[in-house]
This record gives sequence, C-alpha cells and structure tokens, in this order.
Amino acid sequence: MSYTTPDDSPLLGIGGPLPGGAEPVERADAARNRALLLDAAQQLVREHGVDGLTMDALAKRAGVGKGTVFRRFGSRTGLMLALLDHSEQKFQAAFMFGPAPLGPGADPVDRLIAFGRTRLLDIEVEGDLHRAAEADGRLSSDPYALHKSHVTLLLRAAGVDGDLGLVADSLLATLSAALIIHQVEVLGYPRERIGDNWEWLVRHVVSPAAQVE
Amino acid sequence: MSYTTPDDSPLLGIGGPLPGGAEPVERADAARNRALLLDAAQQLVREHGVDGLTMDALAKRAGVGKGTVFRRFGSRTGLMLALLDHSEQKFQAAFMFGPAPLGPGADPVDRLIAFGRTRLLDIEVEGDLHRAAEADGRLSSDPYALHKSHVTLLLRAAGVDGDLGLVADSLLATLSAALIIHQVEVLGYPRERIGDNWEWLVRHVVSPAAQVE
Repeated sequence: MSYTTPDDSPLLGIGGPLPGGAEPVERADAARNRALLLDAAQQLVREHGVDGLTMDALAKRAGVGKGTVFRRFGSRTGLMLALLDHSEQKFQAAFMFGPAPLGPGADPVDRLIAFGRTRLLDIEVEGDLHRAAEADGRLSSDPYALHKSHVTLLLRAAGVDGDLGLVADSLLATLSAALIIHQVEVLGYPRERIGDNWEWLVRHVVSPAAQVE
Repeated sequence: MSYTTPDDSPLLGIGGPLPGGAEPVERADAARNRALLLDAAQQLVREHGVDGLTMDALAKRAGVGKGTVFRRFGSRTGLMLALLDHSEQKFQAAFMFGPAPLGPGADPVDRLIAFGRTRLLDIEVEGDLHRAAEADGRLSSDPYALHKSHVTLLLRAAGVDGDLGLVADSLLATLSAALIIHQVEVLGYPRERIGDNWEWLVRHVVSPAAQVE
C-alpha cells in the first residue's frame, strides 16, 4: 500500500501535469522565485480572501515588479490556477509521501480521517478557487482521479467490503468545495464540526453494517 | 414522524412555490391540459433525451398547436423548469404521502433506501435537467431543503446518533445529479449498482460504528 517514490511519480495538477513538470529544466532560482511568489499569493488569499489576490497586490507583497508577476503567470486567472496547483501539489505530496497520519505509516482509517480534515482546511482557506475549479469539471479532473484512487486504496487497506470506487465517490462528494462552502458560509458551521462529521462518516463506512433482518 | 396533510402543505418547486400553488384557482381543464403536456414532455425526454424536448416536438406529440405550448410555458427554458417542477412535485408527494416503502408506514431505513433509489431513477431519466438546475444553486434551493429535512427526519427515526444535518448533506451529496451522471455516462456504472452503493452507505450510516481503540 504505497506509491512509487516521488521521482517516478509526477503529481497531477488542475487540467494536466503541473507547470513544474512541463519545464523539467527550470533553473533553480526561477523555481525558487516562483515558489516564493506562490507562497506570497497564498498568504494574500488567507488574509484577504480571493478578492485580495490581484497582480498589483502580489507584486507589492513579494517585493517584485508587476511585470515579473505578469511574465510569470500571464494573467490573474493564470495566477489562480498556478496557486491551486501549488496547493494541490502540496496536498498530494502530503498524503502520498508526507508524515503520518496523512502520509504512509498510520492506520488506514486514521489516514482517511486526516485526508478529509486536511482537505477541509484547504477548501476553507482557498474555497473560491476550489469552487471555480469544480465548476470547470471536478469529477473528470486528474486531481479527482488521484484522490479517488488514494481513498479507494485506504478503504481496501481498512478491509471495507463495499463497491469501493463508488464508496470513494460518495466520501469525496461530502468534501466538494461547493458543499463545504455552503456549510461554512450559509449554514454557519465551524470547520471543526464539519471535520467531525467527516470522521463520523469514515468510522461508519469502515465498520460492518448491522445485519439486515 | 409524519407531515401534515397534503392540503396544508404546499410542495416546494425549483425556485419557490410550484406553479400550481401560484394559481390556486386554475381552471380544472387548464390544469388537466397542463399535466397532459408535461406527461408528453416527460415521455419525449425519456425517449430522446433532453435534446429531444423542443416546443415543436412537444406540440406534435401532444396534438396541440405550437402557440398553445408557447402560451403555456413561454419558452423552452420555461418548459424545462415546469417539467422539473412536475417531476419534483411527484417525487415530494411520493416520499411524504405515497405508498411504502418510499412513503409513510415503512421502516425508516427502508424509506431512506427507497428515497435514494427513486431519486436515482429520476436523475437518470431527466439527468440533464437536474444537472442544469444544480448548476443554478442546488444547495440553496427549496427542494434541497425539503429533501434534507426529510432525510434528517428518517435518520432521527432510525436512531442515528450523528450530527444529523451534516450527515444528511453527506448522504444527499452522493445523489447529486452531476455525480450520478458522471458515474453512468463516463464511468459506465448501471443505475442498479449505484443504487446498491446508496443502500450500502445507508446501512453503514445507520449502524453503530466500531469502537475506537
């Protein structure tokens, strides 16, 4: 129950291979600058929401010229996609190769629980980005396929006897950005409580059902 | 665990009270003609998919003039909304007041199972309509609120101990039209198997989880 090493395993980005993969020999300083820009962009979103993420604000925060930001990302949409990829790539690395309980080494049930709780945090922080990406065909995206095969793998490791691909779809449906954002923003649930429901659901799914009379 | 009688309880349509409720004194023959038109429209969709539903085809099928169809529904979009309302209204009447196991009288677990299986059939037949309605804000719609309170009621009746509103959201997420259509059209699952997964999920949710060590 493990993935190949990171070197063999290109992470999957929104709409295909990640930018890093498309430029295999990106110079080290360019890659570092890109990561710094994306970290600054992530901070802006965490502080001011997605509306606070403008090319101007990012240039100012990162201490570079606006031209640099435009050359790097092309447009605000390009920047948002790069940011989602950055965040998705970190999430993928964490659940495949990171420390337990999200990464390998922990009990599969604990890994499933950590998967949902970590995802909830990402969605709360970058919800509008995730929602925009979902509207664009979440279920057919490469990241969705990877999340689904990861969840299926953990369900199998936990000895679950259901139709695992469909069970994985059902579990992931409860982590859709549209639903989480509705629960947080419209219904007013704190993320902790939504995470508790995720854990509750996982524990019921991995436990045997009562016999039908 | 019952609803008020149908007379006291206006059913909830897509985006508000249903057309029937908005015109309380609609003449009996007008109401009958409207129902006949919608039944014919439903047949067209079942036979030819949503693309087969045009104002022309409906007029021909129902044996009326095209002007009658336009006067009644205004546009093809109006017709599609009326059709979804028609189908939603039948579903609501069935789960609140219809025969068991979907309606009252059966065990709450059996009613939950019937709820999902019936919904799956509706979505398979009128999937594109449901998907279009979902894109327009499913989670904030009146029908979603009614489905959620119904599922919450059945979970409570079944003695489930979770955070029931969130559990209901999780269960309903697996019945979203976007997911069902993806499973049927892209992944090629037969509806029966998706229904079996729904039943599997319900049975696990209503059973006690294994104790955490």
